[in-house]
Amino acid sequence: MFDSGIGGLTVFQALREALPAAETLVYLGDTARVPYGTKSDETVIRYALEGARFLKRRGIKTLVIACNTMSAVALPALQREAALPVVGVIGPGAEAACRVTRRKAIGVIGTAATIKSGAYARAIATHLPDARVVSRPCPLFVPLAEEGWVDNDVARATATAYLGDLKHEGIDTLVLGCTHYPLLERVIGEAVGPGVTLVDSARATAKVVRARLEERGLLVAGAGPGAEGGDHFYVTDSSERFREVGSRFLGGPIARLEQIDIQG
Amino acid sequence: MFDSGIGGLTVFQALREALPAAETLVYLGDTARVPYGTKSDETVIRYALEGARFLKRRGIKTLVIACNTMSAVALPALQREAALPVVGVIGPGAEAACRVTRRKAIGVIGTAATIKSGAYARAIATHLPDARVVSRPCPLFVPLAEEGWVDNDVARATATAYLGDLKHEGIDTLVLGCTHYPLLERVIGEAVGPGVTLVDSARATAKVVRARLEERGLLVAGAGPGAEGGDHFYVTDSSERFREVGSRFLGGPIARLEQIDIQG
Repeated sequence: MFDSGIGGLTVFQALREALPAAETLVYLGDTARVPYGTKSDETVIRYALEGARFLKRRGIKTLVIACNTMSAVALPALQREAALPVVGVIGPGAEAACRVTRRKAIGVIGTAATIKSGAYARAIATHLPDARVVSRPCPLFVPLAEEGWVDNDVARATATAYLGDLKHEGIDTLVLGCTHYPLLERVIGEAVGPGVTLVDSARATAKVVRARLEERGLLVAGAGPGAEGGDHFYVTDSSERFREVGSRFLGGPIARLEQIDIQG
Repeated sequence: MFDSGIGGLTVFQALREALPAAETLVYLGDTARVPYGTKSDETVIRYALEGARFLKRRGIKTLVIACNTMSAVALPALQREAALPVVGVIGPGAEAACRVTRRKAIGVIGTAATIKSGAYARAIATHLPDARVVSRPCPLFVPLAEEGWVDNDVARATATAYLGDLKHEGIDTLVLGCTHYPLLERVIGEAVGPGVTLVDSARATAKVVRARLEERGLLVAGAGPGAEGGDHFYVTDSSERFREVGSRFLGGPIARLEQIDIQG
């Protein structure tokens, strides 16, 4: 799995729950260059390919792109160059939203780069061509979640500023199109009002990954721990903060964590 | 001049005003890896040295570090390795605060990395050993300024959350220890209350740079434009956003702007 930083741990957790214990997960977080959501497509694609190369050298059989921005912007390039199955979070998230919506009116929120890409709207259109999609970039939600301000005055004022007018758009479903956003679920829910179902791509993605592995006969059969006894985490900045915030995300310590360089 | 992104343009402007028109400024903004303020010292130092190497190859005679985080964390490494005069913003900012304070009670706000470094407190102590320094990291101010939310409910709630209790600390001076913070001057001023003087390091730094150049006989004498007719801007991410936001910062178009790679 590749993520721009720490947010992808929500996808890690969903994958861990969906996959047999014998599967080993290798997580790469590009914490030295996070965030990706405010950067240009060109730079995000370059960073995505560097990360994919690093993970391939670690012998992975499938690549999961946990970051919405990377999934929105770099998936075609990754699928062309990685030479192994690549699953992003946009397709599964869009499909889940299409299953949930009753009036075919879907809101999508994400980083500036994700929203600008139009990737969610395109993915939704492949399932529900007549769906109405209302998109909003919410760049401040990421630093808010990283600051731990998920349920205070600032979080509420931000959610109202970004989403208050969505109440008049008639949407019944809202895709949380960034791995950090589920942490702000409560204030986002308040801002859009009751009657709007929030969709988190993490679980939908985990199901798709499992199904793809099964289709290709790649799923490990056993129920015991992986051959090397556990998952591995790599980060590009100092591991200190990742260890601290990450164990909060996962509700337990992160055992195998290493700082590495993926540049160039 | 080297900055982590676009914020350093406030320092660029101050330098442009302080220096003869015949001096050419070369600005490097590492927009592909911004922000630095949430990253580890080790990573900030590595990036700082890469940027300094790039600028040296452009034939600069003095290096100005516009970014507070880089100045706080990487100045000793830069001074060791750059082999040319290096001026950061911390020393000049601290000195300006020491001149302004009446009760020797100084507040300092900045990124997490800047505050953790203790660089401002140390610099203040060299001028006023008995000054009391109260420091606060304000990580959300940078994304707020970049979002253009400098005078709305969210900005005010954020300033109150970070700075509301500074009112009871008895400070009479507050150092805006990040290039972005002057954009939020109004809400910051409201949060700390009247009677607190806000100090922006940019002007103080520009004066020091001019003085250093004069001391060493490096200041260009003429009043006309530089030999090559103007300043040069380099960025590491796409130049589109820099051009747009930058011309707002500078109140005019950015002429010579180029995207380059400084990695490795």
